[in-house]
Amino acid sequence: MINKLISGIKKTGAPIVVGLDPMLKYVPSQIQDRAYRDHGETLEGAAEAIFQFNKGIVDAVYDLIPAVKPQIAMYEQFGIPGMAAYKRTVDYCHERDLIVIGDIKRGDIGSTSGAYAAGHLGHVQVGENSYAGFDEDFATVNPYLGSDGVRPFMDVCREEHKGIFVLVKTSNPSSGEFQDRLVIDNESGVQRKLYELIGEKVDSWGSELMGDSYSYVGAVVGATYPEEGKILRDIMPKACILVPGYGAQGGKGADLVHFFDKDGLGAIVNSSRGIIAAYQNDKYSSYGEEAYADASRAAVLDMIEDIRSALR
Amino acid sequence: MINKLISGIKKTGAPIVVGLDPMLKYVPSQIQDRAYRDHGETLEGAAEAIFQFNKGIVDAVYDLIPAVKPQIAMYEQFGIPGMAAYKRTVDYCHERDLIVIGDIKRGDIGSTSGAYAAGHLGHVQVGENSYAGFDEDFATVNPYLGSDGVRPFMDVCREEHKGIFVLVKTSNPSSGEFQDRLVIDNESGVQRKLYELIGEKVDSWGSELMGDSYSYVGAVVGATYPEEGKILRDIMPKACILVPGYGAQGGKGADLVHFFDKDGLGAIVNSSRGIIAAYQNDKYSSYGEEAYADASRAAVLDMIEDIRSALR
Repeated sequence: MINKLISGIKKTGAPIVVGLDPMLKYVPSQIQDRAYRDHGETLEGAAEAIFQFNKGIVDAVYDLIPAVKPQIAMYEQFGIPGMAAYKRTVDYCHERDLIVIGDIKRGDIGSTSGAYAAGHLGHVQVGENSYAGFDEDFATVNPYLGSDGVRPFMDVCREEHKGIFVLVKTSNPSSGEFQDRLVIDNESGVQRKLYELIGEKVDSWGSELMGDSYSYVGAVVGATYPEEGKILRDIMPKACILVPGYGAQGGKGADLVHFFDKDGLGAIVNSSRGIIAAYQNDKYSSYGEEAYADASRAAVLDMIEDIRSALR
Repeated sequence: MINKLISGIKKTGAPIVVGLDPMLKYVPSQIQDRAYRDHGETLEGAAEAIFQFNKGIVDAVYDLIPAVKPQIAMYEQFGIPGMAAYKRTVDYCHERDLIVIGDIKRGDIGSTSGAYAAGHLGHVQVGENSYAGFDEDFATVNPYLGSDGVRPFMDVCREEHKGIFVLVKTSNPSSGEFQDRLVIDNESGVQRKLYELIGEKVDSWGSELMGDSYSYVGAVVGATYPEEGKILRDIMPKACILVPGYGAQGGKGADLVHFFDKDGLGAIVNSSRGIIAAYQNDKYSSYGEEAYADASRAAVLDMIEDIRSALR
């Protein structure tokens, strides 16, 4: 799947992932009205509205990009109907031949991490039958619990040819609270930051699970921290870096050059609100809410150009 | 809700939480057979089997304990039907007046953490209506992303009088890989372990959100690390400590005394496999799989006695 992602980036020339993180306040009124007319102002109504919203965007941009990244929290807040809308979104994106990165940030220990891995990337056995619960292609993983939490995902990735992105340096303002702490190596006494240590682990885990040119074990590093991105690019030469924080969170194309390799590969940049709610942005407001998906397409094209020109 | 938890512990005399982490291999054949007869060997069949398994255990032990802790990964692996079984389990435990600690280990940033918090502990607004998606009483939270990831949960806890347990020192063998690293304070130069730093944060977050005697912000510290438990008890005097790792993971009652205050409160010990799969353990095998729930009750009674005698 990492090979498919890299070839998708090459084919589209767009190292870009659209974050499908729908909030009801982004969903145009015509879509909400229709969903509530059919399902009432219920969790089912909200779930239908966010799925139809997603579908419109996917139909408008699928030919431009290799991948999407639905943020499961935005669906999980609507309970079971919301989770069903997440699954419908994953399936619909697969119909459009998009790679799906499930932004699930799961992480637990042993058999529990194994259960998350099976549910999102693998299969579970029920009697004689085998089922894929959510069936994303990649998942984001939280490393705080150590190798015990990450290896069960790696085991499933090995079997299923799927991948993970491990949180290394997140894009939020307080990410440094723990991630930037200087840690001292017990043996050598060498000091480095916690995110560097975790980056080294990602490199080491990743070396066990290589695709053609990149590893099935990638990393999440926020666009809002370009200096750290440069350091981590060196620490993890075989990791594909998933870069959130572009656009609405403040990251710009020019900040991103050091997340990429010399050949312009090795990173994929996410934008969520900046794309899916583009029609609410002054720059694209002339589209209006009826044509929200066209506004999203315009925003994707602008983002591609911004990143291409930065990489030139 | 933290007050209700503490009063539940006092009333039952059992600082114990039963972990409802069903795996199909724990579910007796009579329950699986019935579920597959009605639903086939499908995700729905598996979901029905694990719910009925849980129900039997809850019916057998609800009068002995204040709380249960379903591990959502064990449900999530079965996709949407599994998530629905999780929700049924939460609701059924509430019918039995048990406090439900959702072991969800979520954690993200800003509005995304807010969405998890709303979905699991709070409410979402759909038009004129408000809904609770999953409606647990407590949730476990991963702190790796810093305060940005934890505060949105605290905001919902404040409104809803619910609580969280923040992962501080987890019970797994590799938990030390990152959590035990010595970190250097940028200003004072003081060195302490990462789990101590996070314990200090839990204490500080918790001081903003106090119940009568304990905070709505608790901590997870594994029974497998009694020395660290002692240190963390001192660092976080107002935090209720959720202690996994008892029983099947190796922790014993005698290891647990330092997780508690002088008055025998301030901690609640989880056992999952040791209780729910007790009938598969030699000690309780005479119950057989038909009477699996009676075996679970016997295991709960033994656990209560083990912990009481350690606390004497």
